[in-house]
Amino acid sequence: MLQALLFDVFGTVVDWRTSLVRRFERYASENSLKADWATMADDWRSEYEPAMKAVRDGQRPWTGLEELHRESLDRLLPRHGLSSLGEAQRQQLVLGWHFLDPWPDTLAGLTRVKKKYIIGTLSNGGVRLLTDMARFAGLPWDVIFSSDNFRHYKPAPEVYLGAAELLDTAPENIMLVAAHNYDLAAARRHGYKTAFVARPTEYGPRQSRDFKAEGEWEFVAKDFEELAGKLGA
Amino acid sequence: MLQALLFDVFGTVVDWRTSLVRRFERYASENSLKADWATMADDWRSEYEPAMKAVRDGQRPWTGLEELHRESLDRLLPRHGLSSLGEAQRQQLVLGWHFLDPWPDTLAGLTRVKKKYIIGTLSNGGVRLLTDMARFAGLPWDVIFSSDNFRHYKPAPEVYLGAAELLDTAPENIMLVAAHNYDLAAARRHGYKTAFVARPTEYGPRQSRDFKAEGEWEFVAKDFEELAGKLGA
Repeated sequence: MLQALLFDVFGTVVDWRTSLVRRFERYASENSLKADWATMADDWRSEYEPAMKAVRDGQRPWTGLEELHRESLDRLLPRHGLSSLGEAQRQQLVLGWHFLDPWPDTLAGLTRVKKKYIIGTLSNGGVRLLTDMARFAGLPWDVIFSSDNFRHYKPAPEVYLGAAELLDTAPENIMLVAAHNYDLAAARRHGYKTAFVARPTEYGPRQSRDFKAEGEWEFVAKDFEELAGKLGA
Repeated sequence: MLQALLFDVFGTVVDWRTSLVRRFERYASENSLKADWATMADDWRSEYEPAMKAVRDGQRPWTGLEELHRESLDRLLPRHGLSSLGEAQRQQLVLGWHFLDPWPDTLAGLTRVKKKYIIGTLSNGGVRLLTDMARFAGLPWDVIFSSDNFRHYKPAPEVYLGAAELLDTAPENIMLVAAHNYDLAAARRHGYKTAFVARPTEYGPRQSRDFKAEGEWEFVAKDFEELAGKLGA
């Protein structure tokens, strides 16, 4: 019997791209910085997979997303004419990933499903990032599960199985909600139920995948409100 | 700068004794069971420290509180004339620990301090227990830290230091709020700020300690509302 819904966060729950660009532009205007912030956000996100890959493949020991974000930023700044940014400014930009806005349907949908199920994150973000984000955006999580808790990044089995162990239930009593087919495929492989919610503008004009469900997921919904309806919540 | 308040849970946030006795009595009347439920609750809690001690001392591998609760119950039932209880009934009694009522000041106090600080648990209870309890009692935690996350019980250093690491901050930016002097002493030893809130009826007539602050804790308050006031929240 379904007991808990766990949610991928970046892209599924929050619109990281629009939020980051807006935040960077505000920060830039307050600090007289000039750059193409949309490209900057896109480039930064492009570093995400390769940065995690080295950890996933065991080429480097466990390293949290906060540190990976900072390393990627340091690599990117010269390409964007921003080499002169100091330590405090770099920290401010990295912190931007903690304060992202939800999609328009997120809060209403989460509030509905929370009445019926435990709701939590299952994210490659860090515990502090996810906690700051929940406070900033008003995300009503019952529990936060982060790559930090398992010292592995999705789609490593340790993340899905670790969350089930902490919830003291079988994986089939948990459903992952995600906008990314690879994540759902891994969750299903480890026994989870699955729900796909398309977020076709997540990556802006660069989006090349995840426009639609690519597996026989238990639920497919256009947003969290529709998902809540399908779950009878 | 103080960023987060972490709370001991059993006794500090919830009145486990009154809640358990009330719940057991209701369950007993529905199931035609007879026993002295107040003594039963007290005896069960008395098993708590010795059960954890074997894990703390390394005499047995990591074992979560759920399993320790069950083992203690199985040992206790014969003494209370309840040997005939079946598996489902025993599970029901163990689950009682997930559904405990807050003290009268808990919700108002937590709601106030949450506006200013990250609030979370730092408990020897399990993640599932703490999640169920938060949903049942309406505890507005931002984040749940449990012995399960660190595979150690308080007062092991791994718990206090592990939570600080997950919050990505120095221990001195965290304050433990607890009704137990031993817990505050350990927190302070690892760099935390400390706040004592007396819960003189926690153990009922058997209470023998923690009637007052036994250290120079940064804050001493009679309840969470007074603590919120002292913190300017």
